Amino acid sequence: MIIDCHGHYTTAPPPLGEFREAQRAALATDPDHVGEKGTVAIGDDEIRDSLEGAQLRLQRERGTDLTLFSPRASWMGHHIGNIHTSRFWTEHCNELIRRVCDLYPRNFAPVCQLPQSPGAPVEPSVRELERCVDEMGFVGANVNPDPSGGYWDGPPLGDRYWYPLYEALCELDVPAMVHVSAACNPHFHTTGSHYLGADTTAFMQLLTSDLFADFPELRIVIPHGGGAVPYHWGRFRGLAQDMGKPPLDELVLGNVFFDTCVYHQAGIDCLLAVIPADNVLFASEMIGAVRGIDPETGHHYDDTRRYLDAAGLGDVERTKIFEANARRVYPRLEGVTA
Amino acid sequence: MIIDCHGHYTTAPPPLGEFREAQRAALATDPDHVGEKGTVAIGDDEIRDSLEGAQLRLQRERGTDLTLFSPRASWMGHHIGNIHTSRFWTEHCNELIRRVCDLYPRNFAPVCQLPQSPGAPVEPSVRELERCVDEMGFVGANVNPDPSGGYWDGPPLGDRYWYPLYEALCELDVPAMVHVSAACNPHFHTTGSHYLGADTTAFMQLLTSDLFADFPELRIVIPHGGGAVPYHWGRFRGLAQDMGKPPLDELVLGNVFFDTCVYHQAGIDCLLAVIPADNVLFASEMIGAVRGIDPETGHHYDDTRRYLDAAGLGDVERTKIFEANARRVYPRLEGVTA
Repeated sequence: MIIDCHGHYTTAPPPLGEFREAQRAALATDPDHVGEKGTVAIGDDEIRDSLEGAQLRLQRERGTDLTLFSPRASWMGHHIGNIHTSRFWTEHCNELIRRVCDLYPRNFAPVCQLPQSPGAPVEPSVRELERCVDEMGFVGANVNPDPSGGYWDGPPLGDRYWYPLYEALCELDVPAMVHVSAACNPHFHTTGSHYLGADTTAFMQLLTSDLFADFPELRIVIPHGGGAVPYHWGRFRGLAQDMGKPPLDELVLGNVFFDTCVYHQAGIDCLLAVIPADNVLFASEMIGAVRGIDPETGHHYDDTRRYLDAAGLGDVERTKIFEANARRVYPRLEGVTA
Repeated sequence: MIIDCHGHYTTAPPPLGEFREAQRAALATDPDHVGEKGTVAIGDDEIRDSLEGAQLRLQRERGTDLTLFSPRASWMGHHIGNIHTSRFWTEHCNELIRRVCDLYPRNFAPVCQLPQSPGAPVEPSVRELERCVDEMGFVGANVNPDPSGGYWDGPPLGDRYWYPLYEALCELDVPAMVHVSAACNPHFHTTGSHYLGADTTAFMQLLTSDLFADFPELRIVIPHGGGAVPYHWGRFRGLAQDMGKPPLDELVLGNVFFDTCVYHQAGIDCLLAVIPADNVLFASEMIGAVRGIDPETGHHYDDTRRYLDAAGLGDVERTKIFEANARRVYPRLEGVTA
């Protein structure tokens, strides 16, 4: 069985986007706009249509089985509006993911976004996490380390601000994928530099904080192959050493995991050469940042299974990366079979 | 001959730091403090002492010849003070680099920092660049894409703001290394996430801008092995393709170069597998971000020559990476011999 730990619902039916546009329009005239949760009217057939020719087709074509499926990351848009609009939006996004997983329980398992908002307390995110996991069977959450959208003006991940969320993640036994949303800072290209920079930034915050001493059970997945981290693993090992910290493997690899959203063979080879197989989780991010076909291979850039198949993995490593690690990091997948 | 294109004067004698401390103290009471350029009293012997047991010893031990030497990057501190204090500080730093190169013309060639300052015009940087190159024989410049120190609130590299600087770089025929300074934003670790994130951010700005159409002769060096870029080369190729741009190689490799400041074998192997030898310049960043000895190899993490020596390069590639590319990208090195 092949579990893809990183997929977003980038093909959601139009009413979802229309709800968000209405929020944005109201916020444009009143930044303190609250509004109501209201409804997002999407039929089951619309959901099926949005997936059959897209994610489900690609799963079949690529021979992958189950995708850990979360709302579209670039649409989380935590910098838009306020804690109220973020909550209503987030609830709709998560509830739609639940419906996807109800329709296709063998193909998708639900991962939630959180109602983060710049300057807002973390408690509403804790409540939404609890609602998603306890009441709706979600298996993980995406946590945005920079709800400002590229201005990085909130508390870093080692700050006590986040501790109630870490407590809830540990208590519920679900991991967090650290994943930013769209950049509104013109310096950053959302899926190019902002995602990769945030992955690297988050990793360094984990390395320099006491988080895993305080939360030894906390599990963090760094997406997009860990940003720059595996490529610069020697630099990070050396920095940790210069700081007098334990060896990097010992310091973070009990808690930190990297996905395989790296879209060429040489990058995947680097990831696998550096990071132990126990800490690598298969993922494609499809349908996501890069949608084209690589003229050098004739296949989609994000068909990451091909790079792993060509990487000369042994059976044990292969099983870990394609399935066993995901089951260990996301234990609430128990009972989900292909 | 082996040319190291990326070294900083991290061991400058104490009077340089004392000058900066005095500026900071004055700025603490008056953010508009101007002061005077004054003097930084450092004797030739102090300069020799600061280098003999450090960079010069390491050059000898590692068998490298010439280092393109610039002021300490983390000390540029463009976010500190104002355009006046930045100018005086920068002039002292650059003049000290000139003295180093006068004392050791076979070991060091000068690269300048610029008197950038958040919200300030770029013209003072153009003037300092001209002074350094025309009057003091500098061969290149470090350009900080984020003088705010991690808040990224100035104009991106594709903005017209920067054009007078690009014009001067082209006219003087010197390249720019895009290099941030210390982060004052607590989200970013200076030599960990800020440097690598800025490298990736700058590359994406170059990719999405029209810079190289407007300045076909402009040459940009991305340090630290290009941040996350080579590791994610497939992602960047795919993003360029999705944007309808020419193939990435064609789009940027006439103008963009990557150094080899990647501190482990697997990272260097990835860099060399992905980036053509014509676009890779040997560098170590020593004495810089990582100072320790890697217990896995018994050698300094930043002894990057070892990774290149072990990478199985052919003679032609080796010559390009160790010397010929540096001479092509930094043509004002003409006449400098080991």
